[in-house]
Amino acid sequence: MSGLELRALATSGGQLRLSLETVTLDKPGPEELVVRVEATPINPSDLGLLLGPAEVSTVRAEGTPERPVLVAEIPQQRLAAIRARLDRSLPVGNEGAGTVVKAGRDVQHFLGKKVGMLGGGMYTQLRKLRAQDCILLPDDVDVAEGASMFVNPLTALGFTETMKAEGHKAIVHTAAASNLGQMLNRICLADGIGLVNIVRSSAQAAILRGIGARHIVDSTSPGFQAELTEAIAETGATIGFDAIGGGKLAGQILQAMETAASRSGATYSPYGSDVPKQVYIYGALDTGPTMINRTFGFAWNVGGWLLSPFLQNAGREVVGRMRQRVVNELRTTFASHYTKTISLADALQPDILAAYERKSTGEKYLIDPSL
Amino acid sequence: MSGLELRALATSGGQLRLSLETVTLDKPGPEELVVRVEATPINPSDLGLLLGPAEVSTVRAEGTPERPVLVAEIPQQRLAAIRARLDRSLPVGNEGAGTVVKAGRDVQHFLGKKVGMLGGGMYTQLRKLRAQDCILLPDDVDVAEGASMFVNPLTALGFTETMKAEGHKAIVHTAAASNLGQMLNRICLADGIGLVNIVRSSAQAAILRGIGARHIVDSTSPGFQAELTEAIAETGATIGFDAIGGGKLAGQILQAMETAASRSGATYSPYGSDVPKQVYIYGALDTGPTMINRTFGFAWNVGGWLLSPFLQNAGREVVGRMRQRVVNELRTTFASHYTKTISLADALQPDILAAYERKSTGEKYLIDPSL
Repeated sequence: MSGLELRALATSGGQLRLSLETVTLDKPGPEELVVRVEATPINPSDLGLLLGPAEVSTVRAEGTPERPVLVAEIPQQRLAAIRARLDRSLPVGNEGAGTVVKAGRDVQHFLGKKVGMLGGGMYTQLRKLRAQDCILLPDDVDVAEGASMFVNPLTALGFTETMKAEGHKAIVHTAAASNLGQMLNRICLADGIGLVNIVRSSAQAAILRGIGARHIVDSTSPGFQAELTEAIAETGATIGFDAIGGGKLAGQILQAMETAASRSGATYSPYGSDVPKQVYIYGALDTGPTMINRTFGFAWNVGGWLLSPFLQNAGREVVGRMRQRVVNELRTTFASHYTKTISLADALQPDILAAYERKSTGEKYLIDPSL
Repeated sequence: MSGLELRALATSGGQLRLSLETVTLDKPGPEELVVRVEATPINPSDLGLLLGPAEVSTVRAEGTPERPVLVAEIPQQRLAAIRARLDRSLPVGNEGAGTVVKAGRDVQHFLGKKVGMLGGGMYTQLRKLRAQDCILLPDDVDVAEGASMFVNPLTALGFTETMKAEGHKAIVHTAAASNLGQMLNRICLADGIGLVNIVRSSAQAAILRGIGARHIVDSTSPGFQAELTEAIAETGATIGFDAIGGGKLAGQILQAMETAASRSGATYSPYGSDVPKQVYIYGALDTGPTMINRTFGFAWNVGGWLLSPFLQNAGREVVGRMRQRVVNELRTTFASHYTKTISLADALQPDILAAYERKSTGEKYLIDPSL
């Protein structure tokens, strides 16, 4: 069997080349499946591999309409950081859903069924993978609904699990009106967890009000720092998850946590309060430097948070419980909304790429490789 | 009994006032001692309480030669951060040593002995405290040698204990030619722990070479990043302790760790290597913002490190072992060097304050309140 697959190639000459290649699949092993991919989202977490450090303004089309190629320049000084991927053609796409068209000896019961998949290389027409990396979709769920059942749902649940494991009781979240942010609101409302939503516009605030969010703070408000401090004091949030990364926001969150903590009558120490304050950066909507103005003592921490190592460390039982909840609540808590469905060839059109690369809140692209 | 005590007062009007006040001590409780303080260092960690956010350039002298008062302005915008200390006269000085002049019923065996002390308020002629916060000095150790037996020695040992507890095998240290940095070198050489010393001048590098340091990198060198990466690759350091805090250094250390990690043949991931990388900021020689250029994936952490919470969490056995080692090696591993001994009144002279406030490597002031 063979099909088309989207490939990303960064050359040591400083060029990014996205293309569609024909790939031929061996027959599946005893515990493997071959899935016809019918829905795979473009998540912000896919863009690193897809576009890497290329200069998006230099994107241009090559190739033919059936076999488009998209080319962009990678500035020389950015090549060192991606040395390990240079001159290797890499498949892209973290998650997807589709129909099982071949099944190995021990997993025959999957044949003909719809599954959600995690494991990379999903921007392809046919994907061979282990059955254990698939989840059977309930009958009333279609592939578009099942395509985003891993990255955002498990990340949102991973935030509340991390909060509990590290002894915090409420959460601050940035870029909070995103698909992920909306899921997190529904989880926190259902589970009685305090959540402070930081957004960057009144339109985003309206989205969150519409789904019942309780604490919404707009970082473009002139009273942002005071409003954030109030919301943090009301919820008792001492852990934050930040999708933005660059700029002063992580430090502002820590400062608000410290001000709230020192209000609650602690004795003065020149080294700050002893309340542990944590901000995890899990995205890079702003790739600029994180600027931390350390005016909040020494009981603080800023670090990276990533789904895969979290799942590896969380243990089988926790991950099993998380996956089951996603399946149970796929059409409610974990519903995703797509603004456009495109083909693999469309994904290589410069104007379409420019649109999904913007990562605008409320805009989300779904690729259907079978189109 | 009464004596003079140095006090720091930050007023809500925006003024810092340092003065000498007469304090009268009650007689000690059954497990308490009264110590005549004869040696107490000015550590960087004392300056927060002593000078707070005052503008050092505005310092001026008031009062009389016997009862000097030192006054400085605190900019209005810095008052919010120190609200909890405003209009309260606070004692200063984390550690010291002296002679026991009164002893409670249950601790009579301390009477007349020399002790090292931890617990704040050491810039005073007479200090009452619990015997358990004192360590008897060996006969061949004088008070100047015993005055710095807590903050720097326990911090240096705390670094290696933290390294081991968090699963790292070698350390990066900044401002590495300091008294603390020299202790850390002696500990690491004795214990076979890899240590990368980052200094800011060739004079500081020479100090470290003189005590046998193996890896010394000068951050003013044009090849700094490459040299740091080499030293980190050789030692396998994945944890750093940074006394500077502001600027790009913490991020440069993380970048060097990531480059070293990805060299050792890991497969490419757009999210970076999975090697956990940690930098703890334990000082603020540069009080400007920490600027972290996140070009090293997601397996990283930057946070505050402070001695007191470390000791609280480390457990009785670990702390007991650390204290015993300090006593055993007080004249070798943990020897401190002072460039000047001054009186309490001297500490309130503008020109002397300007000198110790600079925190120059190799300059260290000792107060003898009995002068």
